[in-house]
Amino acid sequence: MPARKNAFYAQSGGVTAVINASACGVIEAARKRKDRMGKVYAGRNGIIGALTEDMIDTSRESAKAIAGLRHTPGGAFGSARYKLKSLEENRAEYERLIEVFRAHNIGYFFYNGGGDSADTCYKVSQLSKKLGYPVQAIHVPKTVDNDLPVTDTCPGFGSVAKYIAVSTKEAALDVASMARTSTKVFVLEVMGRHAGWIAAAGGLAGRTPAEAPHIILFPEVPFNKRAFLKRVKDCVRDNEYCVVVVSEGAAYKDGTFLADAGTTDAFGHKQLGGVAQVVAQMVKDELGFKYHYAIADYLQRSARHIASKTDVDQAYAVGKAAVEMALAGENSVMPAIVRKSDKPYRWTVGKVSLARVANREKMMPKRFVSKDGFGITAACRRYLEPLVKGEDYPPYRDGMPVYVELKNVPVKRKLDKDFKLR
Amino acid sequence: MPARKNAFYAQSGGVTAVINASACGVIEAARKRKDRMGKVYAGRNGIIGALTEDMIDTSRESAKAIAGLRHTPGGAFGSARYKLKSLEENRAEYERLIEVFRAHNIGYFFYNGGGDSADTCYKVSQLSKKLGYPVQAIHVPKTVDNDLPVTDTCPGFGSVAKYIAVSTKEAALDVASMARTSTKVFVLEVMGRHAGWIAAAGGLAGRTPAEAPHIILFPEVPFNKRAFLKRVKDCVRDNEYCVVVVSEGAAYKDGTFLADAGTTDAFGHKQLGGVAQVVAQMVKDELGFKYHYAIADYLQRSARHIASKTDVDQAYAVGKAAVEMALAGENSVMPAIVRKSDKPYRWTVGKVSLARVANREKMMPKRFVSKDGFGITAACRRYLEPLVKGEDYPPYRDGMPVYVELKNVPVKRKLDKDFKLR
Repeated sequence: MPARKNAFYAQSGGVTAVINASACGVIEAARKRKDRMGKVYAGRNGIIGALTEDMIDTSRESAKAIAGLRHTPGGAFGSARYKLKSLEENRAEYERLIEVFRAHNIGYFFYNGGGDSADTCYKVSQLSKKLGYPVQAIHVPKTVDNDLPVTDTCPGFGSVAKYIAVSTKEAALDVASMARTSTKVFVLEVMGRHAGWIAAAGGLAGRTPAEAPHIILFPEVPFNKRAFLKRVKDCVRDNEYCVVVVSEGAAYKDGTFLADAGTTDAFGHKQLGGVAQVVAQMVKDELGFKYHYAIADYLQRSARHIASKTDVDQAYAVGKAAVEMALAGENSVMPAIVRKSDKPYRWTVGKVSLARVANREKMMPKRFVSKDGFGITAACRRYLEPLVKGEDYPPYRDGMPVYVELKNVPVKRKLDKDFKLR
Repeated sequence: MPARKNAFYAQSGGVTAVINASACGVIEAARKRKDRMGKVYAGRNGIIGALTEDMIDTSRESAKAIAGLRHTPGGAFGSARYKLKSLEENRAEYERLIEVFRAHNIGYFFYNGGGDSADTCYKVSQLSKKLGYPVQAIHVPKTVDNDLPVTDTCPGFGSVAKYIAVSTKEAALDVASMARTSTKVFVLEVMGRHAGWIAAAGGLAGRTPAEAPHIILFPEVPFNKRAFLKRVKDCVRDNEYCVVVVSEGAAYKDGTFLADAGTTDAFGHKQLGGVAQVVAQMVKDELGFKYHYAIADYLQRSARHIASKTDVDQAYAVGKAAVEMALAGENSVMPAIVRKSDKPYRWTVGKVSLARVANREKMMPKRFVSKDGFGITAACRRYLEPLVKGEDYPPYRDGMPVYVELKNVPVKRKLDKDFKLR
């Protein structure tokens, strides 16, 4: 039997309500196969932890603590916005990774992130061979943006989608009941700078044109002020109120973000704030309606209390599958969610080569946006509905969710030189 | 046996996640005492429904639909921001109310609201006697602002408190895991223009100075920019990140709201937006930290999905008690929550004269704010903790909460003249 290799796991980019469920899947699967896989080391603050040899020994955590990761939002080991450059630009970073992996007998690299980390993962697997220290690199998908190709959805997205759909529905009930004498137009700003997946999820709040949200502003659909204002006006006339879900990436035809429009004052100062208030103020100025707006920001991607069970299950499953693929000798692959049927929703975990994932974005198909550009289609609803399905509540104590806090014991360093980050 | 009188129920002011639970309490209790109480008519859009003789016959709703009100946010019959003026200023409004009540044989007036509606309730009971058509007026407490006197808490507040505490905790985990390379300061704006009760609830997210929220900005504590910035700086130095919960009512010593400070540009245009971005931008300008901010707005007071069980139970209980008090011959009173003990939390429903409630605000006691003005004390935590305790999840179907929609069948009008609202 060959000496067991250790594994390195790191979280990358913006965290989600369920990225720790993937960590849980990785660690629990590895623990079950102790005969084949050594310890799982986690990068403190993601890949930075590998570059600086600042790793966490997850074997020091109890089974209970690791199980608790499944219902704990945020990134338990810290994540990082740190994109490795191309091999040509900064080969030293890749070499350093391999150096650290070699020093700690790490043969498996599990990288939990979006498109950028898939690319890094891919490069590490390529380079490690050349450098004579082969590492099996497996990408574990995660992104609230839902923009990874091939996989049916990205763990993290379903829970944001559920949060936005539920919040839209709830706020709409509030606004509807007050509209006679108070707020007529409510605007909810959601994430998604490049793709309207999250905004589309707001569409799950209603089923008929009279039901909120009455208008969704997608990044994919050039903003037409006149058409928008007419729609708001008609909606208030017909329903007495209007709920708008706007993506932070909503933009004019020329690509200017709405949030950027008219953003400097006479002194050249950048105007503060986001797209929700720009849209709300536009409604106020042109139509005179009283408005309110909410900006969900990080609340939406950390809202583990209203996570989608489908999403939690899938996040765990891809973590677990990553370990199984590694032990099956796979390299440079990503576990992906494969949809078998819409209703009932049936899915399984498939395997996709990283060469097919790296540097490709999955945009929202045109057929998911209604003809007028302000809503979602039946096809979109069919796609989205299963992803928000099921509840998976965390445990509570004294009214507050009990989220685990790990000890995060450092792995003893073995290299005597520091690595300077860019 | 005297002829049974009907009852009129109306919702007033901003709605909450649990105001319908009070409606449920009123209607279910009245249905149980059909021998003594006639139908419950609800005002469409609150008191406006009485003034315009636009009432809803709740007897047309199934028992299942009424039971569903207990878990449905918003105002099921519509609410209104419509404060009746003083008797001297607009006696006609009060006389009209009595006229409508008389036409529909209404002997019980249940008004579900905050301070203003308590005052209206009080005046109606006074005037009805003088006009020779006595109405028993019972106020059913409700307000997320938690500012009604005498009662231990106000139904609606506990659920907002839970939402803010949970959201603060979750967003803090997100920020903490990203702080090494991304956002260092996160600001959450919460409701409460006059009192810091909701902001204080954010304090439940953490227990130690290192835990978020690190800073709470209360309306009760004059904003000191220098002290605030120093605290942010120290916090980022010590914890790598800083979470701020700011009340929309946070203000400078002279009473100027932070949200109003410097609100006009060179053209005299009012600057958009709320206090969160003012605070966030201040941090950016003076300390250079990357920031994010969220504005919970209506999401916080409609978030039935994360309602506090204590709050739901109390909202139902005061509705039920209102009917029982009415049948016991009470007039001009309000059911109030009486705290028997903190831990375990034991409470009961007491009775308070409206003369003691009308036109009095309960401010947050000084002893609830920590000495430095940036946090809550142990006494405050003792007060708040039981109010967020327990979960009371709505039912879900296909991933979405199932909130009831009533038929809201109108009561046939009996008066031939319209009433012109102000």
